[in-house]
Amino acid sequence: MRESTLLSQIVAATAGGFPGRPDILVGPGDDCAVIEAPGGGTLLLTVDQFVEGVHYHTGRPIDEIAASSIARSISDIAAMGVSPTTALATAALNSAPEKEYATGLFRVMAKHAQGWPCPLIGGDIAITDGPTILTVTIIGEPHEDRGPVLRSGAQAGDLVYCTGPLGAALASNWTRIPEPRLETAKQLCDALGSDLHAMIDISDGLGRDAARIAERSGVAIELDAQAIPLATGVKSWEDVIAAGEDYELCFTCAARPPGMLGCVAVGQVVKGSGCTVKTPQDEVIDASALGWDHHA
Amino acid sequence: MRESTLLSQIVAATAGGFPGRPDILVGPGDDCAVIEAPGGGTLLLTVDQFVEGVHYHTGRPIDEIAASSIARSISDIAAMGVSPTTALATAALNSAPEKEYATGLFRVMAKHAQGWPCPLIGGDIAITDGPTILTVTIIGEPHEDRGPVLRSGAQAGDLVYCTGPLGAALASNWTRIPEPRLETAKQLCDALGSDLHAMIDISDGLGRDAARIAERSGVAIELDAQAIPLATGVKSWEDVIAAGEDYELCFTCAARPPGMLGCVAVGQVVKGSGCTVKTPQDEVIDASALGWDHHA
Repeated sequence: MRESTLLSQIVAATAGGFPGRPDILVGPGDDCAVIEAPGGGTLLLTVDQFVEGVHYHTGRPIDEIAASSIARSISDIAAMGVSPTTALATAALNSAPEKEYATGLFRVMAKHAQGWPCPLIGGDIAITDGPTILTVTIIGEPHEDRGPVLRSGAQAGDLVYCTGPLGAALASNWTRIPEPRLETAKQLCDALGSDLHAMIDISDGLGRDAARIAERSGVAIELDAQAIPLATGVKSWEDVIAAGEDYELCFTCAARPPGMLGCVAVGQVVKGSGCTVKTPQDEVIDASALGWDHHA
Repeated sequence: MRESTLLSQIVAATAGGFPGRPDILVGPGDDCAVIEAPGGGTLLLTVDQFVEGVHYHTGRPIDEIAASSIARSISDIAAMGVSPTTALATAALNSAPEKEYATGLFRVMAKHAQGWPCPLIGGDIAITDGPTILTVTIIGEPHEDRGPVLRSGAQAGDLVYCTGPLGAALASNWTRIPEPRLETAKQLCDALGSDLHAMIDISDGLGRDAARIAERSGVAIELDAQAIPLATGVKSWEDVIAAGEDYELCFTCAARPPGMLGCVAVGQVVKGSGCTVKTPQDEVIDASALGWDHHA
């Protein structure tokens, strides 16, 4: 079964919403959950897993494992225009690890979390006979003026952008450490304000992730294959539209983002449903089917 | 390596504290982390893992797995006198599970989380070839008047109590679903206020967990073996003092808790360090060594 199918179960499990709980502003189905904190502020929370043999190869250096595990969750925070504040982490370590391994892993995770900066304020370690599995929970605060940027705000007439070239992870043969677009997201919120309608981080390929915006927003998205910016080392839009782990952002907006941010228009939002891509041969195909499930 | 040794690495990884971050009130080393939320309120966070083959037997019914995984994290929240508000969960599922398994697991986790009530507001699912591993993060708010009850507040002269008989998990051969003492914790905060000095949930045995209060508080704790209340089906203090998964609370206070709560005095706090137990033969032995590492 595909991970994406399983993930939909989390959303389905809470399909009834949260009656009587006005403090739960956004539940499962976006990059982060959004709650009203005691005192009236807004808080965002996201959790992600990083699994040996699924998201990274066995034998990858500890520093890269730690950095990637933190960066992937930071990217979910970036996708809502949020500043990370604190983090929690868990590790299920392969049985009988060297003491140095456990010590090193958490120390390096703490270092990378601190760097964003969202210090590691809690965690848990267990020992198993299976693959090592890390989870990283990030807590963050939304952009002060814009508030959290959801997947559900796209409107017909918007342009669809991505924040940079796609396919860098593919070109690196999946060894690249994600570079979450936290600063770009903040600048987009600063510059576009309420004209920044919807945003998502591209973890499963532009096709599938743009389709998620379309679905949550109740609109259709039309991508233009020839407009998709390609990272160095990749050759075609077909390779990158279905390739994940990019962690650039895809967003829709009613105004032009500042040129200095290097964002590239890749499509438009129209009435309807679904996400299509127009090929260089002027064929229109379903982009949401060009998806990506993680594998090391 | 013991889990408790590994857990100390999390604390060590952040041993420098959080300079420049007055919003982080309590970091690793207590039952929950405590932060100041945007808006000025106080928020508590805890995360725990529930690992097939470590914390539960393969083949255990889904409903019991889900209920236990939620209850164990709720117990950390109870240990600080906190009300749970929301939850996040992750599942790394053994490869190629039946769709019904994944669907069922998250649906039942959502049901049990809702029951506390702390609805599941986010999560993540991955597929692995190892044991199934669940993580549950709980977000909570402290008791309005008392604030969070830390491990570090015990004072010489306090009495040490536990909230009920110990050894029920042992007597059930580790099949019992934890019953976190959330309501008792609230009533203790109501009744004792600032006289409730320190609290922990007994997950690794009274000896080791009382020792954690002593260590964080900079005091010594003397337990009385003959005072330890035994759950039905267990025969001796020696069995229960080292047996985990009880999820009763151990607390120290300067005033007597209300008799209706059924708490039992099991020792006292004195100046010094360490945690000892006086046996029925009037021997004094190191109780912190009578510990417990999880196994299914």
